[in-house]
Amino acid sequence: MNYDLLVIGSGPAGQKGAIAAAKLGKRVAIVERRRDCVGGVCLHTGTIPSKTMREAILHLSGYRQRDVYGETYRRKRQITMKDLRRKLAHVTQLELDVVNDQLERNGIDIYAGTAAFTGPHSIEVHREEGNVSLGAEYILIATGTKPARPPHIPFDGDCVFDSDDILELERIPRSMIVVGGGVIGIEYGIMFATLGVNVTVVDGRERILEFCDSEIIDALLYHSRSLGMVFRFGEQVIGIDRPKEQLAVVHLESGKRLIAESVLFTVGRVGETDALNLEAAGLKTDERGRLWCNEDHQTWVPHIYGVGDVVGFPALASVSMEQGRRAVCHAFDEPFEACRNMPYGLFTIPEISMIGRNEQQLTKDRVPYEVGIARFREIARGQIVGDQTGLLKLLFHRETRKLLGVHCIGETATEIVHVGQTVMAYDGTIDYFRDTVFNYPTMTECYKVAAFDGFNKLCLGRAADAALVRHGTDAPAAEVELEEEPAKTLPLSVS
Amino acid sequence: MNYDLLVIGSGPAGQKGAIAAAKLGKRVAIVERRRDCVGGVCLHTGTIPSKTMREAILHLSGYRQRDVYGETYRRKRQITMKDLRRKLAHVTQLELDVVNDQLERNGIDIYAGTAAFTGPHSIEVHREEGNVSLGAEYILIATGTKPARPPHIPFDGDCVFDSDDILELERIPRSMIVVGGGVIGIEYGIMFATLGVNVTVVDGRERILEFCDSEIIDALLYHSRSLGMVFRFGEQVIGIDRPKEQLAVVHLESGKRLIAESVLFTVGRVGETDALNLEAAGLKTDERGRLWCNEDHQTWVPHIYGVGDVVGFPALASVSMEQGRRAVCHAFDEPFEACRNMPYGLFTIPEISMIGRNEQQLTKDRVPYEVGIARFREIARGQIVGDQTGLLKLLFHRETRKLLGVHCIGETATEIVHVGQTVMAYDGTIDYFRDTVFNYPTMTECYKVAAFDGFNKLCLGRAADAALVRHGTDAPAAEVELEEEPAKTLPLSVS
Repeated sequence: MNYDLLVIGSGPAGQKGAIAAAKLGKRVAIVERRRDCVGGVCLHTGTIPSKTMREAILHLSGYRQRDVYGETYRRKRQITMKDLRRKLAHVTQLELDVVNDQLERNGIDIYAGTAAFTGPHSIEVHREEGNVSLGAEYILIATGTKPARPPHIPFDGDCVFDSDDILELERIPRSMIVVGGGVIGIEYGIMFATLGVNVTVVDGRERILEFCDSEIIDALLYHSRSLGMVFRFGEQVIGIDRPKEQLAVVHLESGKRLIAESVLFTVGRVGETDALNLEAAGLKTDERGRLWCNEDHQTWVPHIYGVGDVVGFPALASVSMEQGRRAVCHAFDEPFEACRNMPYGLFTIPEISMIGRNEQQLTKDRVPYEVGIARFREIARGQIVGDQTGLLKLLFHRETRKLLGVHCIGETATEIVHVGQTVMAYDGTIDYFRDTVFNYPTMTECYKVAAFDGFNKLCLGRAADAALVRHGTDAPAAEVELEEEPAKTLPLSVS
Repeated sequence: MNYDLLVIGSGPAGQKGAIAAAKLGKRVAIVERRRDCVGGVCLHTGTIPSKTMREAILHLSGYRQRDVYGETYRRKRQITMKDLRRKLAHVTQLELDVVNDQLERNGIDIYAGTAAFTGPHSIEVHREEGNVSLGAEYILIATGTKPARPPHIPFDGDCVFDSDDILELERIPRSMIVVGGGVIGIEYGIMFATLGVNVTVVDGRERILEFCDSEIIDALLYHSRSLGMVFRFGEQVIGIDRPKEQLAVVHLESGKRLIAESVLFTVGRVGETDALNLEAAGLKTDERGRLWCNEDHQTWVPHIYGVGDVVGFPALASVSMEQGRRAVCHAFDEPFEACRNMPYGLFTIPEISMIGRNEQQLTKDRVPYEVGIARFREIARGQIVGDQTGLLKLLFHRETRKLLGVHCIGETATEIVHVGQTVMAYDGTIDYFRDTVFNYPTMTECYKVAAFDGFNKLCLGRAADAALVRHGTDAPAAEVELEEEPAKTLPLSVS
């Protein structure tokens, strides 16, 4: 069979790429390992299951109601893995139906089997019912990643496990050591801590989630610690022992030993490229099995594109979808408007989201910015849903008031960040938030409170400039570094 | 004492007006009936308590988890009014602290007592500790409204009650007749229906909530009926009897009798203006105690402004805040950028929100629009939170693709509508949603799905235009009325 486009992998990147091509009238096929694997890691072991489990944990643990019904309030005394999984099958099946339906309606052929290149334009699909050879003008590699499993780690799927194994755990351990403080490690670590598990996170770096605003991550660490989590940063794991059942000892290079009932090992992921026989297409991966690609997602072989997690950071379903569409538009010469401002969403507890640059980046870029902050406890909606700790931070240019970044932690952060994203897309200023009516009571109201806070700081800045002039200092305004502290003591702050 | 601005009433309109004036360096005072009434109806009997009670009902009834844990799932078998009130005091106190703190930090004087005009610029505050006379250059009337209580309705606060009485009910009745299908009646009616109360809504009009898109209201009625609610539209209530304790009989003009344990009477609200002695200022109200004002919120007496519910529709806290600021900016000659697109939020179950024009209005205005729809069950986040029924509808210009309206029903509708509001503020098109990456899985993703649905319909429209040309019809495209139905049968629909 010959196709215009052959897609290997049916996760978000592959799906959206295939559908985009089908809509252009192209003949499209997707190869996926097994028919019930359609949807990829996102649907079966990654985004969807972890977010569904998170929602079950928030519900069953009574997390959202702690503030009102007391710290000890729980809907269910003994929460089991079965409870957490109950919702999973339901959601996965619904989403699987949606994906299959979309692929079918768009007339996309699906081959269930393992794909291997036999040449730059040809692939052999290894299937139980017999192999099949497929040819295509363009090929999209969207095979995703799997957890890295170094040989010296004694994985057993019960006491020492990776993020894929979590869904299959038989019981919720009483204690857990999370090795690797990346997004996956932190998301799962906090979920289990919310369930009352004693969680310790170990990471070799001195700071985690460095692509986020550091004030937001500090807040996350603060909340996590108040759940009893312990963080060991700048520590190297040199080995893991399992002296007996349900007991693991993690040895650190510093000489410390950490002991727990279980270890979640989440240090990196590797590209799912072993079986692809990439050499036949003239391609190679890096040492972690990932593909290189250019901005248009072409690999070194121009008619073969790489999209999704297999090409590396940020490995977010949302971005992968865009990559799939972008690659297809490039292949078939369709115009494509790239998204300037990608949002990042972390489904920690509380959730985190951001758009644009953070304080560290703006400082490095020497942009004279100012900060406007709203705390969820100041707004009615925050109190109604019991989020006393959330925070929305606007970063904007001190002279033009142009919005440069939005950083948010707290309930619905991943939703409301899109309001700021839209303002940034239209090169808007924080004046927009001052002049716009938002529904009340909603979390979005934070934008208004934060904007007023920002305006108050600008007033303070002007007062400082005036004082400098009066005292004969002729430093231009742009070079005056304003302290953030004094604002808090003035009666001006917050509307 | 003489002030630059005197504000009567400390609800959202009064508060924000007072703070705006204080920030301009003006001397400001607020008069509020009692110190513990600061915050007005919004905080004590209206928005905040009803939304807090709604959140408690959603939580205690297990509404959000029905889909996953079964229809019969409830966190608590016997929910009492005490349970619903538990969160109330907590939230009200927190919000009261925030408001008092803001007023104090801005140096606003608060007088606890009843205000009555003694002249156009002077007011007497009647207080227990002795009266005080205040003068001001500008006066802001922000006294709000109270439920209308017609004399022929036998209110007793237990069997027959208004929306203010609800918070004080001793028990949750087994059945309830809601007289008046306005926002308040519908919001409370659905809340009680969610708790399992048999609720019947009676309204004299043939359609309720007419300012909303009719498809959205149809969906709301459908969901409400599936909770067991009964709607009697086009029916006039001619009398209410209370033959014995916990039994009310509502007589309709059509001859029907409705029988229930309780009656919630919510037909209109009247301005809180009785005690103001408006004649002394040269002012009069309409027959429902409300004040007339112009676009800048000036009454017939130019230095006296009317803001908030006391001036009528829409009587939303969010809009009242804007009105307060607007009036103050006008009084003190400050520039004010009015919000072009006010969002409407209804905290029904599920919640509803909208921005811009609806289908009826666009049809009336003869705008050639097209519709893009996303159903929450099609997106991952909808499935994760168990919202199978939500709906986001984009209305956009068929030729320019400019966004004209956003109409949403479902979980977080009141938040995500602000993304569309921002696009409309910048005169954006639905291309924005196609070209932008949204966090996954979030409800905001609906915008992308709805935009793709819209693009599919545009393709269909172009195909229809081409066919018309081929068949020799020379009707211009703008006059071709496309049926929406055929789109569903084409393989194009939804990305």
